[in-house]
Amino acid sequence: MTQPSQPAIRTELIRPFLETMLNVLKTMANLEPKIGKPFLKDGLEPIGDVTGVIGLAGENVCGSMALVFTEGALLEVSSHMLGETYTELTPDCLDCIGEMTNMISGGARAGLSNIGLKFDMAIPTMIQGHAHMVEHKTRGPVICIPFELPGGKFYIEVAFQTSN
Amino acid sequence: MTQPSQPAIRTELIRPFLETMLNVLKTMANLEPKIGKPFLKDGLEPIGDVTGVIGLAGENVCGSMALVFTEGALLEVSSHMLGETYTELTPDCLDCIGEMTNMISGGARAGLSNIGLKFDMAIPTMIQGHAHMVEHKTRGPVICIPFELPGGKFYIEVAFQTSN
Repeated sequence: MTQPSQPAIRTELIRPFLETMLNVLKTMANLEPKIGKPFLKDGLEPIGDVTGVIGLAGENVCGSMALVFTEGALLEVSSHMLGETYTELTPDCLDCIGEMTNMISGGARAGLSNIGLKFDMAIPTMIQGHAHMVEHKTRGPVICIPFELPGGKFYIEVAFQTSN
Repeated sequence: MTQPSQPAIRTELIRPFLETMLNVLKTMANLEPKIGKPFLKDGLEPIGDVTGVIGLAGENVCGSMALVFTEGALLEVSSHMLGETYTELTPDCLDCIGEMTNMISGGARAGLSNIGLKFDMAIPTMIQGHAHMVEHKTRGPVICIPFELPGGKFYIEVAFQTSN
């Protein structure tokens, strides 16, 4: 018996998000997270405590990206990025995830324009609340890339409908 | 002594959101919520349990909209809209807020194009989690329109940066 095969994840779509995340964390926070295996979301999980959401809307792309952080992971990133020790979430931490959302969508925007996908810049929306879940209203797949730091887990979720 | 005056809220920017919300609730759910006084957000409140977020990105607009619902308000709207009695949040309720986010941003998009503001359609992202708060990363004002139903409160938050 064979398992039903999962649809292939188009790596050229997720590479710009993944590479920008690693680059941002390395250069701005001197952090190198473990990267988990990307998977297609099939439900509401993963669960996060702080999330940055941004729309990816353009002539031939319609989608959204979310950075879903557990509190521990965001405290670690904020502490390293801002040079202070954060033990609880503050407006600085929310700003930090907003900046990351901007930088990662901006980096992905540049990378995806190389394969002909163009979208306008939007502004991030940040959500703070213990143990929330995110769903993207798309007819296309939702790709989730898991990461892990000593402080906790975090995820990039990308939902895409493309017309080419 | 005079109070520091709050900056004026540009009614032509919020009217399309407000009118579409009232129209959607009336025609699809036969509900007429009380409308509170719109205010400029100055912090993280209001608090919601289910939120729909969508980007508003285009040639001369850069922003985001969030529909922030308390659980009670969304259960009431979902029950009326879908013709079943919901006593707890289900995927149907999440879909319901996603649809409303689409319809209200779509209606606002049509209304705002009349005053020269054009943006592309994005897809909504829905967040479910008890007592979360939303922040919009914008240099512009964030307008919040409060509504109330017997089941609870809900809000439209609109963040806008326009270049004209």
